[in-house]
Amino acid sequence: MEINNSLKAEVLVEALPYICKFQDHRIVIKYGGHAMVNKEAKNWIAQDIVLLRFVGINPVVVHGGGPEIDAAMRKMGKEPEFIHGLRVTDEETMEIVKMILVGKINGDIVSKLGKYGGKAIGLSGKSGYLIKAKKKKGYIIKDNKKIEIDLGKVGDVEEINTELIDILLEKKYIPVISPIGIDDKGDIFNLNADMVAGDIAAAIGAKKLIMITDVDGIMKNIEDPSTLFKKLTISEAEELIKEGMISGGMIPKVEACINALKKGVESVHIINGKIPHSILLEIFTEEGIGTMIVKD
Amino acid sequence: MEINNSLKAEVLVEALPYICKFQDHRIVIKYGGHAMVNKEAKNWIAQDIVLLRFVGINPVVVHGGGPEIDAAMRKMGKEPEFIHGLRVTDEETMEIVKMILVGKINGDIVSKLGKYGGKAIGLSGKSGYLIKAKKKKGYIIKDNKKIEIDLGKVGDVEEINTELIDILLEKKYIPVISPIGIDDKGDIFNLNADMVAGDIAAAIGAKKLIMITDVDGIMKNIEDPSTLFKKLTISEAEELIKEGMISGGMIPKVEACINALKKGVESVHIINGKIPHSILLEIFTEEGIGTMIVKD
Amino acid sequence: MEINNSLKAEVLVEALPYICKFQDHRIVIKYGGHAMVNKEAKNWIAQDIVLLRFVGINPVVVHGGGPEIDAAMRKMGKEPEFIHGLRVTDEETMEIVKMILVGKINGDIVSKLGKYGGKAIGLSGKSGYLIKAKKKKGYIIKDNKKIEIDLGKVGDVEEINTELIDILLEKKYIPVISPIGIDDKGDIFNLNADMVAGDIAAAIGAKKLIMITDVDGIMKNIEDPSTLFKKLTISEAEELIKEGMISGGMIPKVEACINALKKGVESVHIINGKIPHSILLEIFTEEGIGTMIVKD
Amino acid sequence: MEINNSLKAEVLVEALPYICKFQDHRIVIKYGGHAMVNKEAKNWIAQDIVLLRFVGINPVVVHGGGPEIDAAMRKMGKEPEFIHGLRVTDEETMEIVKMILVGKINGDIVSKLGKYGGKAIGLSGKSGYLIKAKKKKGYIIKDNKKIEIDLGKVGDVEEINTELIDILLEKKYIPVISPIGIDDKGDIFNLNADMVAGDIAAAIGAKKLIMITDVDGIMKNIEDPSTLFKKLTISEAEELIKEGMISGGMIPKVEACINALKKGVESVHIINGKIPHSILLEIFTEEGIGTMIVKD
Amino acid sequence: MEINNSLKAEVLVEALPYICKFQDHRIVIKYGGHAMVNKEAKNWIAQDIVLLRFVGINPVVVHGGGPEIDAAMRKMGKEPEFIHGLRVTDEETMEIVKMILVGKINGDIVSKLGKYGGKAIGLSGKSGYLIKAKKKKGYIIKDNKKIEIDLGKVGDVEEINTELIDILLEKKYIPVISPIGIDDKGDIFNLNADMVAGDIAAAIGAKKLIMITDVDGIMKNIEDPSTLFKKLTISEAEELIKEGMISGGMIPKVEACINALKKGVESVHIINGKIPHSILLEIFTEEGIGTMIVKD
Amino acid sequence: MEINNSLKAEVLVEALPYICKFQDHRIVIKYGGHAMVNKEAKNWIAQDIVLLRFVGINPVVVHGGGPEIDAAMRKMGKEPEFIHGLRVTDEETMEIVKMILVGKINGDIVSKLGKYGGKAIGLSGKSGYLIKAKKKKGYIIKDNKKIEIDLGKVGDVEEINTELIDILLEKKYIPVISPIGIDDKGDIFNLNADMVAGDIAAAIGAKKLIMITDVDGIMKNIEDPSTLFKKLTISEAEELIKEGMISGGMIPKVEACINALKKGVESVHIINGKIPHSILLEIFTEEGIGTMIVKD
Repeated sequence: MEINNSLKAEVLVEALPYICKFQDHRIVIKYGGHAMVNKEAKNWIAQDIVLLRFVGINPVVVHGGGPEIDAAMRKMGKEPEFIHGLRVTDEETMEIVKMILVGKINGDIVSKLGKYGGKAIGLSGKSGYLIKAKKKKGYIIKDNKKIEIDLGKVGDVEEINTELIDILLEKKYIPVISPIGIDDKGDIFNLNADMVAGDIAAAIGAKKLIMITDVDGIMKNIEDPSTLFKKLTISEAEELIKEGMISGGMIPKVEACINALKKGVESVHIINGKIPHSILLEIFTEEGIGTMIVKD
Repeated sequence: MEINNSLKAEVLVEALPYICKFQDHRIVIKYGGHAMVNKEAKNWIAQDIVLLRFVGINPVVVHGGGPEIDAAMRKMGKEPEFIHGLRVTDEETMEIVKMILVGKINGDIVSKLGKYGGKAIGLSGKSGYLIKAKKKKGYIIKDNKKIEIDLGKVGDVEEINTELIDILLEKKYIPVISPIGIDDKGDIFNLNADMVAGDIAAAIGAKKLIMITDVDGIMKNIEDPSTLFKKLTISEAEELIKEGMISGGMIPKVEACINALKKGVESVHIINGKIPHSILLEIFTEEGIGTMIVKD
Repeated sequence: MEINNSLKAEVLVEALPYICKFQDHRIVIKYGGHAMVNKEAKNWIAQDIVLLRFVGINPVVVHGGGPEIDAAMRKMGKEPEFIHGLRVTDEETMEIVKMILVGKINGDIVSKLGKYGGKAIGLSGKSGYLIKAKKKKGYIIKDNKKIEIDLGKVGDVEEINTELIDILLEKKYIPVISPIGIDDKGDIFNLNADMVAGDIAAAIGAKKLIMITDVDGIMKNIEDPSTLFKKLTISEAEELIKEGMISGGMIPKVEACINALKKGVESVHIINGKIPHSILLEIFTEEGIGTMIVKD
Repeated sequence: MEINNSLKAEVLVEALPYICKFQDHRIVIKYGGHAMVNKEAKNWIAQDIVLLRFVGINPVVVHGGGPEIDAAMRKMGKEPEFIHGLRVTDEETMEIVKMILVGKINGDIVSKLGKYGGKAIGLSGKSGYLIKAKKKKGYIIKDNKKIEIDLGKVGDVEEINTELIDILLEKKYIPVISPIGIDDKGDIFNLNADMVAGDIAAAIGAKKLIMITDVDGIMKNIEDPSTLFKKLTISEAEELIKEGMISGGMIPKVEACINALKKGVESVHIINGKIPHSILLEIFTEEGIGTMIVKD
Repeated sequence: MEINNSLKAEVLVEALPYICKFQDHRIVIKYGGHAMVNKEAKNWIAQDIVLLRFVGINPVVVHGGGPEIDAAMRKMGKEPEFIHGLRVTDEETMEIVKMILVGKINGDIVSKLGKYGGKAIGLSGKSGYLIKAKKKKGYIIKDNKKIEIDLGKVGDVEEINTELIDILLEKKYIPVISPIGIDDKGDIFNLNADMVAGDIAAAIGAKKLIMITDVDGIMKNIEDPSTLFKKLTISEAEELIKEGMISGGMIPKVEACINALKKGVESVHIINGKIPHSILLEIFTEEGIGTMIVKD
Repeated sequence: MEINNSLKAEVLVEALPYICKFQDHRIVIKYGGHAMVNKEAKNWIAQDIVLLRFVGINPVVVHGGGPEIDAAMRKMGKEPEFIHGLRVTDEETMEIVKMILVGKINGDIVSKLGKYGGKAIGLSGKSGYLIKAKKKKGYIIKDNKKIEIDLGKVGDVEEINTELIDILLEKKYIPVISPIGIDDKGDIFNLNADMVAGDIAAAIGAKKLIMITDVDGIMKNIEDPSTLFKKLTISEAEELIKEGMISGGMIPKVEACINALKKGVESVHIINGKIPHSILLEIFTEEGIGTMIVKD
């Protein structure tokens, strides 16, 4: 469909109330993993983020990179191993994690944002001690007993130090953050990107956390888009987990969302990165897209 | 034509390179007179200006108000009188000019901008001695001789004091300026709004000056839109005046444009305010609209 | 009386403790209506205000304009109508109110202040949404029953947004504010200037509110200056209203004073603008002039 | 003569144009020596300086202290010794100089300014290396030959470091500076206060340098006040020195004035501190007092 | 012992954790009296203070000067007189106190700090009304009754005005403060330097107060260094006073320390200025030196 | 050798003049390649850099990583290939370069600096378009003719955008920069780290550029440390290249040094990272270490 100029102008003007509403607010965008495989999607998402920045909104990007890490490990002849969804991370794996997250994915996002005119800057949790982390305790259940096991360099967020993000946002940079944490001794940990995104959103006072995934949101029946939940409260989401309606990899994602909401983020949105310009659709249309989760 | 969300998003994204290009720049918009009679046009223009502000561009509005002043004068039983296009302005007329420009038109623009989310602030040349002016000498030609006559409170811009505009732009306000000047003794003068717009554009280092009128631009044949000049240099415009192709009320307007260009403004645009969202079309499309005048 | 230079110097020096005491404080001056008719008084008041600014005090001016509005209405063949002291304000009247207040009176004050070296800037409640207002409900008493009536565009102050005043005071501008408010829909309202002055004084943390009138203050017997109350507490003033000693137009003025005091202003002063330099006399002499009202 | 309040107000208002003219400018006041012996004069001068500060002018005080140093030396049984007007300053004398200038005179001025509401701060050339100095070479003429002699700790100004003064003026402090210099090795020197005042005035971009003395200015006949020169150019002053009309202690003072003018100060004023409020008279009256020296 | 370069580098590096720990903190150093007699000690202390400043710590110096004042008084033929350790301070004595403290000692410290590269600035309590004081009531015990006596210009600290210190520290100056206070009437008072140091430390939020003395700290047996208390709590120190283990001039010093701790300083250190670089040893070594007193 | 505390203090104090001299200056440290293989050296260098930061000097780190890239390539079964010392960089190699430089080496340096208390932040030339680059043209000489060849993603620095570095230094962060450049189309290039270090040093106005290598400096006879050149001018260095005394990998390094000097850096130092704390020895000792090159 050809759009003539006059309609273009109207579209821009229709965005006004949304621009006005989110002016000067901070929005964290979790972006990565499966949603990032598609090259076109990468462009859409980068354009959307740069546009947010130009219309006076402060986006902060947190990315993951599971599939790329798996691929790199396999290429180096190392089979990825997971326990309860957590990647067992020995020293060698940690090296690969850093190289892929920081050296490849983060840099690619920064380049893409730069290509569309954004001043992006790649950070990891080590930058200015941005993400303080501690070793995560792993468990397996054996004979009905929880047995503690060592997951290696897997960590939990302990504290977000927002100074650096504040400085960069004030100067109109777009921070792009790899989910790597550091402890007081200088040890480095692999962190869950969804959780990092939620904790950063809470720490910097973000109004929204947008989780870009490769599904349309939370659905009753994953095969049937018409069963999408447009809006859930925390309690409703927790109920859906209990009932098993939310399952698999969606569980930790929803838990990260609930964590962010409980720490103060106003709303969390699970949206589908394969839909062109899904971030803009979420922010600049009345109905939004995907599943929105809010406090009770 | 219905536009679906996905196309909307694309339109927004297409604006990115233009937003990027004009980021943090200042643009003066001369707005008024005949273009302001239409209520819808007032809304379009206000929306466009607020949108510019939100996408990081610094608009400054200068308005005129000839037709409204004429109407008010007639309502009060006073016939407007012009000599070579300059309004003869006795004390009583000056009172009406102030009431209409500052009390009515300026305030209406400020309200409209506010309605769409802009932080607008009405100013006149008296505000913080923004526009220093001096009495203009009028002439008539009689028996082939120039005879000096008194036009009353008609003035010329002498100096623009940008301090107040700088302060307000830095805090993201949209200044809306009435073309009234003041001299050292505190005397008030009625100024030509086009000239004021050009002088302010030059003084504040504006990249563009946009003159909103009620015609499509400069045309070979005013009846035939296909004869529109898309782009002129100063010399070409001067030539067209000499040839009589530019005539009547368009002459002082083009002279104000040339004055602004000579004082440093990069480009001046004469556009038609009756075209919806003409400002956005000028700034956010490749081809622009109206007539652009640039240095040789 | 000739004053020699040495005495002049002494006078300046005597002002020191008062300058010191009010240094960096904010003072709201309500100025207008009948006190403004006299041309000499306008000069005195402007000089006094500029002097305050130069000695490090931050004056904010709020003006009224009842008599001028009446005159303009009558000139346009429209008879002013009041119900319980409130001007019935239809759309046409509102247009006149704006033109007179903003286009004439406000501008004249700004010019006068400029003439004496002040950097004044005219504002109305629309400027940067400075005064949020809402429609006022009017009543008449008929057959002992309160009947709601429509007063048109008459409003009440709902909220003062001090951002713009703060910015301007910091840069040493003198804000001159017309009592016009705006609601969320962009509708404009005519407000009581005394009440606006009091609300602004409270909102910006003013130390003093000075009400310039055409009488010496609150007097037991309006014919006898020796019956002036030099100082009243809120309760005493309320008592005087109850007793009928304060009556007519002075009632809403004193109510505005009490409102300001209850919202935090330290002292309110009702002084006579026809006394030369009454503001300076109030601030720079031990005994002050007029009636001071303070908290109980 | 009793002055009533209304006249007081008029006097304040008459000062407006002068306050306006010198707003934000810096003025150096050299103050000391004989002019400081009189207790009343000390009060007048302190009041004047504080008043300048409050009306938005930035005074900087430089003081001398010859008579007090002489007195202290004699009290300690040491006879002051001068060669060509320069105090021979051995180590012990230097200790006395510091104690009297910094410990006594500077502190007394600071206290007095504080008493009238000024935020004064005492400095010497050592404070933040404010006055870099070097040893002065002394000469005597013997048998028509210049013979170099050692004057001890007498120095010349080499460089003024304005950082500290700038910081303090910006925060509205009144710097009070003792004429003591320091060299790179940390050695301390006794400097000529007039010269220090001139060099500081030039270095900080002062508009005026006011030299407070105990005479009315430069006079043809020192016994006859009617022979006062109201205004001199540099050349005229130099001529008067050559002619011997300016003589004795006035010579180095006028040389310091000329030095200041040549380095950029706009005007220098030699006034009589025994006239009450002479600083105010100089700044706030049309005719000024004393002798003004300006560039040719 | 010759130290080679490589060991030098190691020493610098060992200081890192301490530098890091005290980064941006404020430390008050009380310095003076007997500890200042030794010329070498003056150099050590000045070097230490400048070094602190360069490694990002904010030192503030408060000095005393009892012995020098005694010497100067005796030189002028005046015998110092003390009642309960407080110097009886008549007008003449006060003049000497000011000259010695401000004119001599303060200036000498400023020069020394300057010599080692520090930007020092001498202040007294009069500077910008830094130390507000009030007259101290003196007592003698006669026939078991407390009889009030007049100690002259002896004062107590009433309030510390930190504005000036804050401004100077922010610009990396080292304030050097003489213990002289001022009251509202401009009267000057001689204050106890230890108490001033403690009150300033508390007022500016210092982390440490270091009292430089001429003994190693608090000792059980003053003759036996091995009886030094390395660390005391407030209660323990108070107990030692009660038991008489702390006696004489050490009592008011310890009381000043306790006062500072109670007002919020984290730790107070009594150290020996005769030990080379005792300040650095206290701050940059694990074990520190002298006696540390902390809250219970 | 045990060093007692008192000697430690002396060492700290000896550093004072050097700290003072380099206060607030910027120093670029090129660090990497062979000098980084040694784990102890990494600690020394990190400690030195953090110490510089704490004593008020602004270090900026640029790192290389040739050996690590070679190792990673070989591990992935790819043989590194060089033409005239330039790494032939196909797309796959570029991916490895990014992963090793940004994902591994840069991150390791940031962690180490963090461990010693520094606020380090990893950047590459992509961060905020820090290093604009363009494709380098490669040549081979065949039959005495220069034949242009394609080196792939090898680039030359075109422009350094210092905004981000300025912001970070002002907030006391230590920027650690990977030598990766970006062109306008968003293409990424592998750059020579020595050249990047030199260009950054010049662009940010660094006083010194320190090249950390694994040799003692430029030597007549590389086997004989006594033949070290302590100081060379540009011309002398150029002469040594011509004479073949400087050869192999040292040639491009010295050329990068000369480039930096010509663009305004004051001095360049080639030092040996295997000597403990070589940076501190260079900066904090009179004689320095290694070879210093300066302008003629």
